[in-house]
Amino acid sequence: MHEVMIIGAGPAGMTAAVYAARKRLKTLLVSKDIGGQAIWSSKIENYMGYQFIEGAELMRKFDDQVKLFPIDQMIGEEVTALERSNGTFQVRTAGGETLQAQALILASGKHPRLLNVPGEERLRGRGVSYCATCDAPLFSGQAVAVVGGGNSALEAARDLISIADHVFLVSPTKITGDPLVFDRLKSASNFTAFLEAEVTEINGSKLVEGVKIRDRQSGRRDEVRVGGVFVEIGRVPASELAKDLTGVNQFGEIEVNRNCETAVPGLFAAGDVTDVLDKQIVIAAAEGAKAALQAHRYLQNLRYLQSLASTDKVA
Amino acid sequence: MHEVMIIGAGPAGMTAAVYAARKRLKTLLVSKDIGGQAIWSSKIENYMGYQFIEGAELMRKFDDQVKLFPIDQMIGEEVTALERSNGTFQVRTAGGETLQAQALILASGKHPRLLNVPGEERLRGRGVSYCATCDAPLFSGQAVAVVGGGNSALEAARDLISIADHVFLVSPTKITGDPLVFDRLKSASNFTAFLEAEVTEINGSKLVEGVKIRDRQSGRRDEVRVGGVFVEIGRVPASELAKDLTGVNQFGEIEVNRNCETAVPGLFAAGDVTDVLDKQIVIAAAEGAKAALQAHRYLQNLRYLQSLASTDKVA
Repeated sequence: MHEVMIIGAGPAGMTAAVYAARKRLKTLLVSKDIGGQAIWSSKIENYMGYQFIEGAELMRKFDDQVKLFPIDQMIGEEVTALERSNGTFQVRTAGGETLQAQALILASGKHPRLLNVPGEERLRGRGVSYCATCDAPLFSGQAVAVVGGGNSALEAARDLISIADHVFLVSPTKITGDPLVFDRLKSASNFTAFLEAEVTEINGSKLVEGVKIRDRQSGRRDEVRVGGVFVEIGRVPASELAKDLTGVNQFGEIEVNRNCETAVPGLFAAGDVTDVLDKQIVIAAAEGAKAALQAHRYLQNLRYLQSLASTDKVA
Repeated sequence: MHEVMIIGAGPAGMTAAVYAARKRLKTLLVSKDIGGQAIWSSKIENYMGYQFIEGAELMRKFDDQVKLFPIDQMIGEEVTALERSNGTFQVRTAGGETLQAQALILASGKHPRLLNVPGEERLRGRGVSYCATCDAPLFSGQAVAVVGGGNSALEAARDLISIADHVFLVSPTKITGDPLVFDRLKSASNFTAFLEAEVTEINGSKLVEGVKIRDRQSGRRDEVRVGGVFVEIGRVPASELAKDLTGVNQFGEIEVNRNCETAVPGLFAAGDVTDVLDKQIVIAAAEGAKAALQAHRYLQNLRYLQSLASTDKVA
């Protein structure tokens, strides 16, 4: 039984772990990966202390700092279920383990919104990617499709245009991202845009071989041969674990107060999975610190109440 | 007229400045110093990204980052008055200047609590110090007094004991700091403690020459010859500027909501001057970011309302 379990090892979760360990709490950090969304940022200029740093590099530094403290870690482990009984939290992992803690900090961040079309799940990691920053270099000399019309889709297309043979942009709406970036893309000879069009299927036997596209106005169907599909249609809070336990808002974000408390005693949440207004690395880190310090107060109070109860028993 | 003025250049104020400038707001940063309380920390292990860094070094990095952006700065300038009229903020400085802005972020942090005894004000900077980390090395070979009984007083005494000839600790209460540290101090031959005793006067013509001490129980009076007095009796929020304008709590902290808004439209506050529960560098930085982003939203909304009003006029 740990005193505090932290789910997620992005900026919020790693900072929470350091703060919890510095309060000498027996701490467990469980996460399927390290660095969360931050590792996808190629260029960070607003994390104070570093004028310029890549997301992956900054997250390595966070991870090094975590390793200085006596923090139990289960990295590469996905949490599939969370419940609370008798005032403690039970967690089930994809690997079949059951973990317990007296306090829990959910710092699971956001994950990419899925297209939910045939072929997407089967070909994930086989040409279907949710991270152009991570995977673009793999598609050198191939044609690729980017799905989305916002800034993250335009930036993915811009990254890919100098690597891939051809870039097809399929935007379900008109372009909502920066018009200047889109203008520059249009002037490239290896770029084609389908606007107000949807991907209806991703084809391929073992690897992605093409996508089917339907024009939303005319109903016209196209098919293009691509080796990669980058899905860039936004991110959603990874709040599934907690939404039966505590309140989430209309965006699926876990509702917390300014001290990162949820409606459930002992359950805290921090960072992009919460309804904190601004999603920024320094803010997620600070919220992780707050959650750990508040969890420490919660546990101290719990000990105090337990000591009163045991005194009663003796008397 | 600036769009946003930030008062204070500690972690909160400098981060607010960077975030405001990145939103292309015309930004003015006014502060009597750079780095706030953080420059007094000799050892920071919980600012993520740096396993270990001195406060002064981290604040230099923050300052370097501020300098990358087009931010007007008035450093070395103390703000003496703040008022709001016609929806804009007017600020008076000790240097006699009047400054204006449409939105204001107060990030003035905390300043040391004063002893309020004769001699203290006159001999400030002439032997009276509020920062052992900054000034201890100046007192090599002299006797010094440390006033206070909490951890910051004990740490000041510990720092001084290897530098000064003799350290007198004068604690107005019993020791409230770490007993282990106090035990170690007591075993030193150049250490004397006066507990439950108060400093009633600081003597000296041009420089500190001694302090008068009164035992609170017995009323007995002592006088010791010292060249330095370190006042370590806590810190108070530097909220004087705003307390007639918006709400402060019982500790003198400015009341803000989780988006760093005060009760006054356009007035934001961030960091240790506010009622944010935990006073930490990463938290102050994040609160500065939040305040700047919220000020940006406020100004955008203001522009929108102004554009509606001017359309009305034309019609």
